[in-house]
Amino acid sequence: MKLELSRVVQGCRLGVLSGLGRQADRSLQIPGCLLYTRCGSVPHLTHETLSTVDSMPTVTQLTLPTLAEHQEVLEEFKEGARKFTGLHDTVLYCSLHDPAAPSPAGYTTNKTVSVWGSGGRMELTPSRFIALQAAVQPDWYQSMADGETLQADTSRKRVKKAVDRSLAFLDQCLQLHHQTQELSHAEVFGVVEGGDILEERLRSARETAKRPVSGFVLDGFQVDAMSPEVRLNLLSAVTAELPEDKPRLLQGVGRPDEVLECVQAGVDLFESFFPYQVTERGCALCFSYTYQPDPETEVLERNGATEEAGVQKTGEKEGDKADDTWAEGPMTQFEMDLKDARYREDFSPVVPGCSCYCCRNHTRAYLHHLLLTHELLSGVLLMLHNMHHYFCFFQALQGALRHGQLHSLRRRVLQRRDGTS
Amino acid sequence: MKLELSRVVQGCRLGVLSGLGRQADRSLQIPGCLLYTRCGSVPHLTHETLSTVDSMPTVTQLTLPTLAEHQEVLEEFKEGARKFTGLHDTVLYCSLHDPAAPSPAGYTTNKTVSVWGSGGRMELTPSRFIALQAAVQPDWYQSMADGETLQADTSRKRVKKAVDRSLAFLDQCLQLHHQTQELSHAEVFGVVEGGDILEERLRSARETAKRPVSGFVLDGFQVDAMSPEVRLNLLSAVTAELPEDKPRLLQGVGRPDEVLECVQAGVDLFESFFPYQVTERGCALCFSYTYQPDPETEVLERNGATEEAGVQKTGEKEGDKADDTWAEGPMTQFEMDLKDARYREDFSPVVPGCSCYCCRNHTRAYLHHLLLTHELLSGVLLMLHNMHHYFCFFQALQGALRHGQLHSLRRRVLQRRDGTS
Repeated sequence: MKLELSRVVQGCRLGVLSGLGRQADRSLQIPGCLLYTRCGSVPHLTHETLSTVDSMPTVTQLTLPTLAEHQEVLEEFKEGARKFTGLHDTVLYCSLHDPAAPSPAGYTTNKTVSVWGSGGRMELTPSRFIALQAAVQPDWYQSMADGETLQADTSRKRVKKAVDRSLAFLDQCLQLHHQTQELSHAEVFGVVEGGDILEERLRSARETAKRPVSGFVLDGFQVDAMSPEVRLNLLSAVTAELPEDKPRLLQGVGRPDEVLECVQAGVDLFESFFPYQVTERGCALCFSYTYQPDPETEVLERNGATEEAGVQKTGEKEGDKADDTWAEGPMTQFEMDLKDARYREDFSPVVPGCSCYCCRNHTRAYLHHLLLTHELLSGVLLMLHNMHHYFCFFQALQGALRHGQLHSLRRRVLQRRDGTS
Repeated sequence: MKLELSRVVQGCRLGVLSGLGRQADRSLQIPGCLLYTRCGSVPHLTHETLSTVDSMPTVTQLTLPTLAEHQEVLEEFKEGARKFTGLHDTVLYCSLHDPAAPSPAGYTTNKTVSVWGSGGRMELTPSRFIALQAAVQPDWYQSMADGETLQADTSRKRVKKAVDRSLAFLDQCLQLHHQTQELSHAEVFGVVEGGDILEERLRSARETAKRPVSGFVLDGFQVDAMSPEVRLNLLSAVTAELPEDKPRLLQGVGRPDEVLECVQAGVDLFESFFPYQVTERGCALCFSYTYQPDPETEVLERNGATEEAGVQKTGEKEGDKADDTWAEGPMTQFEMDLKDARYREDFSPVVPGCSCYCCRNHTRAYLHHLLLTHELLSGVLLMLHNMHHYFCFFQALQGALRHGQLHSLRRRVLQRRDGTS
């Protein structure tokens, strides 16, 4: 794995991560995202359907909980999770947790980390963890870590313990990793912990960077864990401590506005669980990510003339849905709620001009109809659109950085947020 | 619509129904089945995914309940359900009820029939029914009918009333139909009722046949309504009364063994809700429908040597699942339960040799894994396989009739049933 930066603009790193995969012949643009999966499948979609989506990430994220309960099957199968799940031509990254599933706190010990599958909690020691990775055979994976610092009132002592444990887990994992034949081609990412305490964050970053890791996972910055200001300050401080030539993957952050902010704080990689959550709540991403609007459109926009009929305004609905399940999460201003009655007779595509399968073939009214009658196709179509939209956003982000248009992109992305420019 | 019979073998009608669709240029082989949909979509599948399925029926079945609650939307849309649901290149048949959803009895009156959508019960008068059809714009549709004779203890008086009402509804529908511009190209199927009372069945058939209908829907023969013997005797008697040159569609019967029996009783068309039910209970169709086994295989089979490991035997599980929901129905001997632990480490395709997307790309063990972790892809993959398998069975049935091999096909289909030949 080799990271080449072509430019750094306002803190944003633009470049390419190359030498990925078994043949070391795959690459990934940064800033970029990984393909979110559950059990090696993008929820609702076959690999064939998925291939219609534009700007697909070259790296697929597997999550350990969905694989851990079938460890013996994978061991018996012998050929790894890539072949087992039918993912032939992709680079596999294996994370410890599923970003769109809850991981209750209070179960990490000095010797174990717990993950939750459909059958309940599974305790992993470093040796079981590495045995699992040997069965999964990913191209890269995240080391075991103690991430139990998400609660706002986590004590300094607990945060310090999380950093210590994560470093100890990393050392044990690295040692076992080097003794494991099946992992001879795999690379390990170290995990930076430290909650919201700057000194611990810096210590975690510096100490992790001393180990022979290929990259860094930035954990504990999840949405509700801290205020945006605190998060950005910590991220900037942490990334400044990390070597420039290794990638930084931020866990649990997916909203477009937050992605833009975190990229400016030196983050390279994100997960793509956000479009999955949008799909599960029956919504479609509709924010704009054009960074080179033609002058005419721009004038119209200033006058408010192109404000699309029917698109959610100023957090109109935000907070309405406190009873949402974990997998769904609260609705954001970047999406439209297609269950809303306003789309009942709206025969336009979900996003006019979008080239995805859903927008090319179906109307908002039909999606509304499918959602209200609980038809299974609604999830398939929304997932296709949302993944497509999200990946195109990352492609636009790379283009904007290349052409010095980050400010323009940011303005467009936030447009939906407050109804003005 | 024109039916040409090329041969009648042991009561089975082999032929082609031509002149279908707006341009009257589509045709459908009989015996055959329609494509089951909900809201115009095959559950779990996009039209693109569906196009990978072999031997797809040319006629798609829409069900009125999923459309009735959106009548105003369709009226506003003006271009019919075909375009609204994105079904561009198909012939549309609209049925009164959804064969895979319950229709509680006790709501039909002399003037109305009730249908159940996700929002509850909707009462249809003949004029609302025809207005709905004018909005849906199908190529053919079933007339309104009183089908409340499914309970075993329905009185002779109630059955007689059902026949009378269905004839009256048919007359009213036909009259309104001819006054409706939007339905000038549509054809009407009359509905034969009569419960399990022979005279009423014959009266219903004869009277319906006197009306200017394009074909016949045989209603009230659903699985639990009567014993197989009673059903077959009634069906044979009814079809003998119907004109030979018009198609007969049997509602609510889908199991392969029952399909074979009903074809011998003169039925031409079936619905395809059965593979959907199999999918919803996490199962895969695995019965054999080869009618020309090579001699070597046949000898091996007689010796029991090719009995596939892992396939459900002799109704082993039947009746286990009394708590199943309506949409699922009870498991049959034609399918394998992929949730069963025996498939945990079974790395063979669902059906070895099957050319469907699921069998070409995935193993039983992976399907088992997806089902146990409640992954949404399981429904997509099973639906692809089950639809493919079911449509290929109908194609094999046509081939077997053409080559005088019905007995051989029947033996193979029933093989799974009792574990022997």
